[in-house]
Amino acid sequence: MKLSILQENLAKGLATVSRSVASRAQLPVLSNILLATDQGRLKLSATNLETGINHWLGAKVEKEGAISVPARVFAEFVASLPAEKINLATRENNLLVNCGHYQAEFNGLVATEFPKIPSVKGKPDISFSSSSLTKAINQVAFAAAQDEGRPVLTGVLFLVKGKQLILVATDGYRLGIKKLPTTKGITESKELKKGLIIPSRTLLELARTVGETDQEGSLGLTITQEVNQAIFSSPETEVVSRLIEGKYPDFEKIIPGKGKTNLTIDIAELTRAVRVAAIFAREAANIVRFKIDKKGLEITADTAQIGRNIARIEAKVSGVGGRIAFNSRYLLDLLGVVEGEQINLELSGSLNPGVFTLAKDGSYLHIIMPVRIQE
Amino acid sequence: MKLSILQENLAKGLATVSRSVASRAQLPVLSNILLATDQGRLKLSATNLETGINHWLGAKVEKEGAISVPARVFAEFVASLPAEKINLATRENNLLVNCGHYQAEFNGLVATEFPKIPSVKGKPDISFSSSSLTKAINQVAFAAAQDEGRPVLTGVLFLVKGKQLILVATDGYRLGIKKLPTTKGITESKELKKGLIIPSRTLLELARTVGETDQEGSLGLTITQEVNQAIFSSPETEVVSRLIEGKYPDFEKIIPGKGKTNLTIDIAELTRAVRVAAIFAREAANIVRFKIDKKGLEITADTAQIGRNIARIEAKVSGVGGRIAFNSRYLLDLLGVVEGEQINLELSGSLNPGVFTLAKDGSYLHIIMPVRIQE
Repeated sequence: MKLSILQENLAKGLATVSRSVASRAQLPVLSNILLATDQGRLKLSATNLETGINHWLGAKVEKEGAISVPARVFAEFVASLPAEKINLATRENNLLVNCGHYQAEFNGLVATEFPKIPSVKGKPDISFSSSSLTKAINQVAFAAAQDEGRPVLTGVLFLVKGKQLILVATDGYRLGIKKLPTTKGITESKELKKGLIIPSRTLLELARTVGETDQEGSLGLTITQEVNQAIFSSPETEVVSRLIEGKYPDFEKIIPGKGKTNLTIDIAELTRAVRVAAIFAREAANIVRFKIDKKGLEITADTAQIGRNIARIEAKVSGVGGRIAFNSRYLLDLLGVVEGEQINLELSGSLNPGVFTLAKDGSYLHIIMPVRIQE
Repeated sequence: MKLSILQENLAKGLATVSRSVASRAQLPVLSNILLATDQGRLKLSATNLETGINHWLGAKVEKEGAISVPARVFAEFVASLPAEKINLATRENNLLVNCGHYQAEFNGLVATEFPKIPSVKGKPDISFSSSSLTKAINQVAFAAAQDEGRPVLTGVLFLVKGKQLILVATDGYRLGIKKLPTTKGITESKELKKGLIIPSRTLLELARTVGETDQEGSLGLTITQEVNQAIFSSPETEVVSRLIEGKYPDFEKIIPGKGKTNLTIDIAELTRAVRVAAIFAREAANIVRFKIDKKGLEITADTAQIGRNIARIEAKVSGVGGRIAFNSRYLLDLLGVVEGEQINLELSGSLNPGVFTLAKDGSYLHIIMPVRIQE
């Protein structure tokens, strides 16, 4: 292999693929990044066996070839070099790097030892607008379970229903649903009609990668059934994810019917009030209490050692008043991803879930289970 | 106590004093901040028994009084409030806070339980320009020892010699010296002629506090012999420090005589080259090697598993060439605090310390012990 590339481009590309490098690698080769020439471009690849990534960069290729080198040190080294042209060349199992007054030699591993990361051949099965898919992921994926107790809950369900693609995530305490309008091709996908479960971690990484590379473009999704993987692809990047096997819970059963209390609240005011209450609630299981009357909402938190606080927020209230308590972390997670000025909250008593919807965006729904408290 | 104060001012003041709150308090009261009215201002005080701070804020005082409240939650709460007027009032042992739609009540402790933090009475013994003292601290204090093996080395020596105030810090592997011109009053101080040892941690906190509050002003130093403490004071802030007892090592013996090799190096180029080498050196005891010849300097690092790198830097060299190795952390610590374009390095062989001085600032000297390596 022999090629030259601009320091800035290589440093950026390495930062993107580095996120998929195993942090504690089971195999030494998994802490490496694969560099390979590919039809006049440089392809960088990394994998932690759950997520894999292929990322292509413009380069001047003089001689084809491939090698893998230690990811962390190589990425940091390139990031520290001056913004000049970098020459890369292999010598046996080593990679020689030349840039201005700097020279380095990395002990590499032969490219054939690097795990195969599948790549899209031909057209993807379906495709989305990059920005709406990444927004949907950011609004839903955080509600997936963190612990592996029930593996299906660590993923996000991708499901086609009627003319809509639905993304669903739940950890049993909260549930996020986002509907996207049908894109050409979606309704024909058998897998999506049954429902795919994709690890939430991979999706959040995908959203970050797309945000850095081509937010404006289009993102393809290819399902490679033979190895049970999904590939999200743009012209520069492919993110490969394993699929989670198992049956996703029937989320529609969880959505409550019409509530008894309906509030419309300013998002910025609610966020500040919950954030303030959360400071007090931190040492009291994160419990914040809502008290609703005709004029609005009172948010309180109380810690035996520290003290207590009350915030009063105006809100449009219809239906009966009442009380309910939530975990402040779940509220702040939700308030961190919603857009717009107002949020609706529908309640059916203090023991039933609260349903949050957005005043101007009917495609989003978020449900939070209340905390049972003694009055 | 009853007073009102602007949210912005109180939040800023709390952030400043919070640094002196004990992180793991031996006594519950040490995790509190004391609020006390003081001649029409609000005085905030905190102490971790090593460093204490008094900080005054403008406020509209209606009724005198004092109380201490949990520092962390109170500071976070105030920081989260809207930028409006805050009303503070005591009710028995509690502090009531009112700000816009927000109300809180903090469980406090009576002010008399809070440890006494000495305050300056009358004029300080000596005074400095705030900016030159904080700059001197930042250039020297990092060289003090972190571990408590030899307590005197965890401090910075303040010593008057002839017409200069000298700041010295060393951890046995490196030594920093900064000379400040005599300020009125300094030469009369008996304590400073003998030498005061002030904990480096306190000084670094002082430098940050002064940087945030009154960088342009003047800083007084009062030595309160009866309790063996030093007080740095500005009109808004007093930082109180214990003094370290013991005999400081004779640092002048460590300063080598005229060297055999003299280099003048561009600081930005040297910093980049050391930073790049440090990436490779990280898994090899941070050892970076210098090779000096007539044309300049070659900096290399080598890790068996990862690989090796070489950077060539031009430098003005006089005297003989040679080799020496340093710990990259020490070099980067030094390069992080020096100002100007060029640094001088004087060497007397690979086993003797390297002496760093600044081309345009004769008041600063830094010595780093070499690492003994096999050729």
